[in-house]
Amino acid sequence: MKKIRLYTPGPCQVPEDVLIEMARPFEHHRTEWFRDLMKDATTKLQTVFQTRNEVLTITGSGTAACEGAILGCNPPGSKMLTIEGGKFGQRWGEIAEQYGLDVIRHPVEWGTAVDPQVVADHLAKDPAITCVMLTHSETSTATLCDLQAIGKITSAAGKLLIADCITSIGALEVRPDDWGVDVAVTGSQKSLMLPPGLSFVSVSPRAWETIEANKGQHSYYVNLNKARKSAAKNDTPYTPAHVLIRGLTVALQMLVDEGMENVWKRVGAMAAATRAAGEAIGLSVFSQRPSDSVTAFTAPDGVDTEAVRKELKARFGIQSAGGQDHLKGRIFRIGHMGYLDSLDATAAIAALEQVLHRAGHNFELGAGLAAAQKVFAERL
Amino acid sequence: MKKIRLYTPGPCQVPEDVLIEMARPFEHHRTEWFRDLMKDATTKLQTVFQTRNEVLTITGSGTAACEGAILGCNPPGSKMLTIEGGKFGQRWGEIAEQYGLDVIRHPVEWGTAVDPQVVADHLAKDPAITCVMLTHSETSTATLCDLQAIGKITSAAGKLLIADCITSIGALEVRPDDWGVDVAVTGSQKSLMLPPGLSFVSVSPRAWETIEANKGQHSYYVNLNKARKSAAKNDTPYTPAHVLIRGLTVALQMLVDEGMENVWKRVGAMAAATRAAGEAIGLSVFSQRPSDSVTAFTAPDGVDTEAVRKELKARFGIQSAGGQDHLKGRIFRIGHMGYLDSLDATAAIAALEQVLHRAGHNFELGAGLAAAQKVFAERL
Repeated sequence: MKKIRLYTPGPCQVPEDVLIEMARPFEHHRTEWFRDLMKDATTKLQTVFQTRNEVLTITGSGTAACEGAILGCNPPGSKMLTIEGGKFGQRWGEIAEQYGLDVIRHPVEWGTAVDPQVVADHLAKDPAITCVMLTHSETSTATLCDLQAIGKITSAAGKLLIADCITSIGALEVRPDDWGVDVAVTGSQKSLMLPPGLSFVSVSPRAWETIEANKGQHSYYVNLNKARKSAAKNDTPYTPAHVLIRGLTVALQMLVDEGMENVWKRVGAMAAATRAAGEAIGLSVFSQRPSDSVTAFTAPDGVDTEAVRKELKARFGIQSAGGQDHLKGRIFRIGHMGYLDSLDATAAIAALEQVLHRAGHNFELGAGLAAAQKVFAERL
Repeated sequence: MKKIRLYTPGPCQVPEDVLIEMARPFEHHRTEWFRDLMKDATTKLQTVFQTRNEVLTITGSGTAACEGAILGCNPPGSKMLTIEGGKFGQRWGEIAEQYGLDVIRHPVEWGTAVDPQVVADHLAKDPAITCVMLTHSETSTATLCDLQAIGKITSAAGKLLIADCITSIGALEVRPDDWGVDVAVTGSQKSLMLPPGLSFVSVSPRAWETIEANKGQHSYYVNLNKARKSAAKNDTPYTPAHVLIRGLTVALQMLVDEGMENVWKRVGAMAAATRAAGEAIGLSVFSQRPSDSVTAFTAPDGVDTEAVRKELKARFGIQSAGGQDHLKGRIFRIGHMGYLDSLDATAAIAALEQVLHRAGHNFELGAGLAAAQKVFAERL
């Protein structure tokens, strides 16, 4: 018997009901049928995003949505600040540079989160900055920054804040309206429990003012002004991946039924249990400010993380993620997003114990599971 | 009982096997499993495209792929010619304009195809033109241009030719290598028998020279150079809609098994039968050079095309398309792409007869079906 168990930080496990929904015969997308789906999805997206802002659906990965947001929010003559603490943060700076935007790219050591004061200092030093972009949960390093504190700073300074919330929304507490996040982006294949192919952007009224007035270069395909115009009619400017949107309505309903605070609690408990378990069996949490949506472990000397990942897959069908760029071979990552609950986290810990034990790593079998049990008993 | 019958010119009917394939548990996309799928899909795409050129897979609609192709093939200082005979042709000119490219937008009367000599004249008059873009099968008017003749002209002149083959590849004869089509684009939701969400671009060695050397503005998300680099490893630069790609391998296998010449024959017979049937019951074919992938009919005076479409859907679950822009209410369109065969075309004709008869339109019941039967008996 061979099971597939997706613990990667996206794509994540998709509920059977969602897969079945997408296998049903479908209609054309310029129909009342589709507009009803779109309306339903958008309303539920607002709940999952915890926002009253408009939420747009893009057919494309999170990168496509971020490209549209970066170009929309940064008109000619304005200056942008990007905070880059990992692979994804770097990408947003790259986009800005490629389009010739005036951008300050602030690097942050991988595995650490930016100090909000750093953002405040940049804004104080350079009043020409009109927009800040950061990655809330940096998937490549499993690190969470203090979005709420940064949002307070950018709001007070009257600056736009774009947050890549690709591995936070739907897993971790995010409150764009209360926290001053003008643009929040996520993707379908993370906590929204869908296959990849869609991304989503929420836009505040303040950001719309800038985007609407922006006479500079927009992306053609991900032009937020055009997407908004269509969205007002529960439609899209170009052919949407409507079968995914159909699945989305089912996946979002599951999140809405559970209640977002309960979702955050479930994911938070899984992450805390996994961290406690890892530490109980001799692994170290890589990040100095770990995200709850994905955990990155550094293995002790003598343990080959790539061999561990290979064994997890071969023996248990568990798919995890390795490190990216200079972290390749140094860390491995286990996700807590998607259709996973405490027993799934428990299963991953059990598998990890078995693999590390057979690899000759020295620890007490069951110690990780016991640590996890204590966390779950307390938190859930 | 209510069946859904998709005769829209995209999205098209998807085979049950493809829907079921996409509902199966899936793996992560940065795996051997996915790279094998990607390799399999790419090889089969080359067969369906009838090309030895590299074929890239983009997560996004055909518009995204065309944006990437237009920017890639038109470096700063070059001039582009777009041939615009309908809604889609216009879009390509719009993209070029939005990015500030130097573009000559040549309008063609809707429902007619460009005279290849017109392209030759433009190239002779303005040697600065380095790239021509056109729509092979203009879906909005159901019109086919003579791509082969135009490719001969552009090749002889040493110019790049980008063809939107979104509703031709996989349905109609297209031979990019023999015809001198440097870049050919199609989408998943047409003849490739998938739901929307993917698009595909074939690129000739000659076009790669230009794209590689182009230091101007590329799209970030649909940067063909980056896509090529990843494709060499059977991968994609950003998270792909890999569940759709999995379905694609099954859909393409069906086309490959049928054989492309047989596919073209099947689609051609359905189109000819539908045109003959329509004329036998008093409808007129709108286009002066009809495409075989979709048929546009003009209704006789007194027949409301929108009411006809509404009835087709209400009574028979048949989804058709109306006219776009100034053709709204003047024409209606029935597609021949996707998972449809001669009996499906026959069913659509039967339904059309029933609806027109009840609407009081005067013709001999069964005349359309008889005309279609003759075509099928001859051609299949």
